[in-house]
Amino acid sequence: MLKKTITPRISETNITQHIGHNAIPVWLEEGYTEIFKMFNQNLAEPCLVTVNLNMDFLNELFFGKDVEIVTYVKKIGTSSFVLHQEVNQDGKLCVRGSTTLVHFDYSIHKPVPIPRQVCDLLRNHLLVSS
Amino acid sequence: MLKKTITPRISETNITQHIGHNAIPVWLEEGYTEIFKMFNQNLAEPCLVTVNLNMDFLNELFFGKDVEIVTYVKKIGTSSFVLHQEVNQDGKLCVRGSTTLVHFDYSIHKPVPIPRQVCDLLRNHLLVSS
Amino acid sequence: MLKKTITPRISETNITQHIGHNAIPVWLEEGYTEIFKMFNQNLAEPCLVTVNLNMDFLNELFFGKDVEIVTYVKKIGTSSFVLHQEVNQDGKLCVRGSTTLVHFDYSIHKPVPIPRQVCDLLRNHLLVSS
Amino acid sequence: MLKKTITPRISETNITQHIGHNAIPVWLEEGYTEIFKMFNQNLAEPCLVTVNLNMDFLNELFFGKDVEIVTYVKKIGTSSFVLHQEVNQDGKLCVRGSTTLVHFDYSIHKPVPIPRQVCDLLRNHLLVSS
Repeated sequence: MLKKTITPRISETNITQHIGHNAIPVWLEEGYTEIFKMFNQNLAEPCLVTVNLNMDFLNELFFGKDVEIVTYVKKIGTSSFVLHQEVNQDGKLCVRGSTTLVHFDYSIHKPVPIPRQVCDLLRNHLLVSS
Repeated sequence: MLKKTITPRISETNITQHIGHNAIPVWLEEGYTEIFKMFNQNLAEPCLVTVNLNMDFLNELFFGKDVEIVTYVKKIGTSSFVLHQEVNQDGKLCVRGSTTLVHFDYSIHKPVPIPRQVCDLLRNHLLVSS
Repeated sequence: MLKKTITPRISETNITQHIGHNAIPVWLEEGYTEIFKMFNQNLAEPCLVTVNLNMDFLNELFFGKDVEIVTYVKKIGTSSFVLHQEVNQDGKLCVRGSTTLVHFDYSIHKPVPIPRQVCDLLRNHLLVSS
Repeated sequence: MLKKTITPRISETNITQHIGHNAIPVWLEEGYTEIFKMFNQNLAEPCLVTVNLNMDFLNELFFGKDVEIVTYVKKIGTSSFVLHQEVNQDGKLCVRGSTTLVHFDYSIHKPVPIPRQVCDLLRNHLLVSS
C-alpha cells in the first residue's frame, strides 16, 4: 500500500463550493508517482500509458482539510496492471478509483512485458482480499 | 446526440508530448454543458452531481488538431442518468467516456427526481442501439 | 511573512520537462490563503479581487522536489494591498511574484475599505526593507 | 496582430462564479501559439522561455460567452521579445497581458539570438502606436 497526503487547492474549489471531479485524476496520479519510479527513475522517459480510469464519487471533498490517498495494486498482467485507490478526507471515503496502466515502449509504439523485478516491486503493494 | 468541438490547448500537452488523460474529464464536461442548461439556466445554482466517471483511452490525442465530442444519453433513471461520450480526433475514436449524474437538491442535500420535462429533453438524445 | 510548502505535481510538468509557468499563479494563491481567511473565514463568500499579477520567472522549477513559497505584504492602501512572493526550490529563487488585491463588496460590486483589524493583521507580514 | 477565440470552460468558473485569474495565463498562451510555430514547427522541441508575465485584470470574465484574444508584438530585442495581449468579452476589455519570452537553446541552456527570418515574421505583428 502506498500513502500520499494531498492538500486541496483553493483553485480546485468550484462553483458549487466543493472540489470539482476534474481535480481527482490529478490527485490519483499523485498517489501513484512511486509506481512511475519503479519503471523508470527518469520521468522524462515515460513508459506507462493509462488505458482506463474509473472513479466513484462517494462523498464531497472540500478545501481546507488534507486528503489521504491510499493506492493498492489490484491485478498484474503481462504488460498491464490495475491500481485500486481510495481518497479519504476527514475519516470519510470520498472517491474510489481504478486505473489500468500499460507498460509501453514509445520507440516501437507497442505494449511490452513488465520486467520481472518491477513485478516484484508491484507485488509488495498487492491488495489482499480478506 | 450533442456535438461539441474542442481545441486542445498547448498547456494540456504533457511530458510525453500528447494530451494528458487529466485533461479529458474537463473536455467531457464541456461536451454536456447543454445538459446542465436543461436542468437550470443558471449555472450558479448547480443541481447535478457526478457520481461515476469511466474513461477508456483508446488512442493518443495531440495538440494541433480539433477534437469532436459526441454525447448521447444512455440511460434515464428516477433521479439519475448516464451519458455515453466519444472523443474523436482526425477520424479516430480516442476516448470513450461514461458519466453518471444525479439530480441533486443542495438545500436538502438529497437526490430528487428528474422533472418530466427534463426527461423529455434528455430522451431526444437517447443512444439507440441498432 | 507567511510560509507554505508546495509539492509540484506530475501533471504540472510540461512538454519541456519542467513546471509550466501556468502552474505558478495557482501556487502563489496557495501561498496566501491565510490572507483570504483574515478577511473572511468563509471562503464561500469571497471578498478579494485580483487586479494585477506580475511574475518574474528566474529559474526553472522541476517535479520531484518540494517548493517553498514566502509571502510578504508590500503595501497597504485604503481598499487594496500588494503582496510580494518568492518561490524557492532547492535553495534557488525561481519565481518572484507581485499580486495586487482589492477588498470588494460583491453585493454592491464596488471596492470597500480594508477593515482596521484586518490592516493590523496584514501589517504583521509587512516586508521591511533594510 | 494575431486573433484567437477561446470558449471559456465550465471548469474554469470558480467559487465566485466568474473565471478565476489562474485560467488567464493558459488563454494568453493559446493566443500566441502561432508565434511558437514561427520559431519551430515541432512543438516537441520547445525553444522559448517565458521570463515575465504581467496581467491587469480590468473586468470580470464569465462562462457562457466566447472570448477574443488579440496579440501584438510590443518590442523585439536580440534574443527576447515582448508580447502585448488584450482579452475581450462582450465588447469589454477584461485583461491586458504582457509576456516577455526568450529564445533559448536547451542543449547549451543559454539564450540565443532570434533568427533574422523570425524577426521579420514577428515584425508583421508589431504594435504601432498612433
